[in-house]
Amino acid sequence: MFSKAQIKYIQSLQHKKYRQKFGQFVAEGDKIVQELLQGSYGVKAVYATKAWLEAHGNVTGIEVLEVDEAGLKQISSLSTPNQAVALVDIPTLPPPVLKGNITLALEAIRDPGNMGTIIRIADWFGIRQIICSPDCVDAYNAKTIQATMGSIMRVPVIEMELPALLKTPGQIASYAATLYGHNIVDTKKLSEGIILIGNESRGLSEEIVQLSSHQITIPRIGQAESLNAAVATGIICGRLLI
Amino acid sequence: MFSKAQIKYIQSLQHKKYRQKFGQFVAEGDKIVQELLQGSYGVKAVYATKAWLEAHGNVTGIEVLEVDEAGLKQISSLSTPNQAVALVDIPTLPPPVLKGNITLALEAIRDPGNMGTIIRIADWFGIRQIICSPDCVDAYNAKTIQATMGSIMRVPVIEMELPALLKTPGQIASYAATLYGHNIVDTKKLSEGIILIGNESRGLSEEIVQLSSHQITIPRIGQAESLNAAVATGIICGRLLI
Repeated sequence: MFSKAQIKYIQSLQHKKYRQKFGQFVAEGDKIVQELLQGSYGVKAVYATKAWLEAHGNVTGIEVLEVDEAGLKQISSLSTPNQAVALVDIPTLPPPVLKGNITLALEAIRDPGNMGTIIRIADWFGIRQIICSPDCVDAYNAKTIQATMGSIMRVPVIEMELPALLKTPGQIASYAATLYGHNIVDTKKLSEGIILIGNESRGLSEEIVQLSSHQITIPRIGQAESLNAAVATGIICGRLLI
Repeated sequence: MFSKAQIKYIQSLQHKKYRQKFGQFVAEGDKIVQELLQGSYGVKAVYATKAWLEAHGNVTGIEVLEVDEAGLKQISSLSTPNQAVALVDIPTLPPPVLKGNITLALEAIRDPGNMGTIIRIADWFGIRQIICSPDCVDAYNAKTIQATMGSIMRVPVIEMELPALLKTPGQIASYAATLYGHNIVDTKKLSEGIILIGNESRGLSEEIVQLSSHQITIPRIGQAESLNAAVATGIICGRLLI
């Protein structure tokens, strides 16, 4: 079982402030913990049920603790019960390299599920890096981590002010997703550039649209008022990157 | 306040069995209730807070009940508190018309959020109808309804066995989304056809793939194992319908 101090520490990592302070995050769920153990991230501890450890727990060099489901529930931030939880070091990420790469830049994405799904989309399409505005939901939120399905390990997510990104010297084209831009059907396949996606309700801010070199739009045939932010990201990647 | 019988009745509508028995569903949330009141669906009752009714409650011909937030919580199936709830008749839908239309067919989509997001995508792309296999999550689930953002009123969702659909006489082409089909980049824009999307974890069953006339695939550049079912639907519509 957990000590009180362990529970307190792990629960503190539900908050971005403490994740940043301690440089660690918590990943919850059978599959993501398996993926983390096979990946390049620094996994510091695994807390799992006896059954899970018997099936997957051939783990050396890290702290491994057998915990029953009630114990896991004590440290979980998710509503669905989990068999395994990992304590992982937040990696030190290299600065973004815009030249020659596709970069996805997100402004004020607030829903952890959307954020995780977008990271997974970026991984599918081979996007080199994601830049998040500081008011995005944190990529190391437990719900986000779970929704990435392991893609968090393959796509660096870097926090940065978007105006500073767009004012970076050099001629990197940027493509702002708006409701009144150039039809994506007529936009050429990209080999370099920044794709800008905005908040779930408000879209991109006027400041960011003004700073972008291109505005692009998914044409609407029917009547839906808008598309989910992750779905829009997928559609745009599906037109501009393949 | 609600009577005990009202609470019992409304709560029963959280289950598909009772929705089918009584022919009604419950929609929760400020925006969706507003949209329903302006749309063509038969709204039978609105239960809302005083503030909501003052702002939007210019409603005649239906039952309107002022309820405080605690009262709304008693009948809610969602975790986020709502200002308004509507009791709505499930519409009688016409049989699907495949000839000359785009149809989206879903097999075993289980997540209500995905289902609602897919209905919203269909509405954006002007898809005429959605066919769901009987093991899909119900379109009139409160979470699904909320995720459609009102699109449920514009896209008929019809439950039907998919093999029967695909064996319907006539030459309607069908396009099964798989991991080993024809590249969607090389697939022509469609003006008629059935797009088939499978379960979140397993994809389409072998039976359905065998019955389809075409298999299509979103090419993967990176390493993600799969895409979210709603995102995949969006990407395919973004290549084949615009």
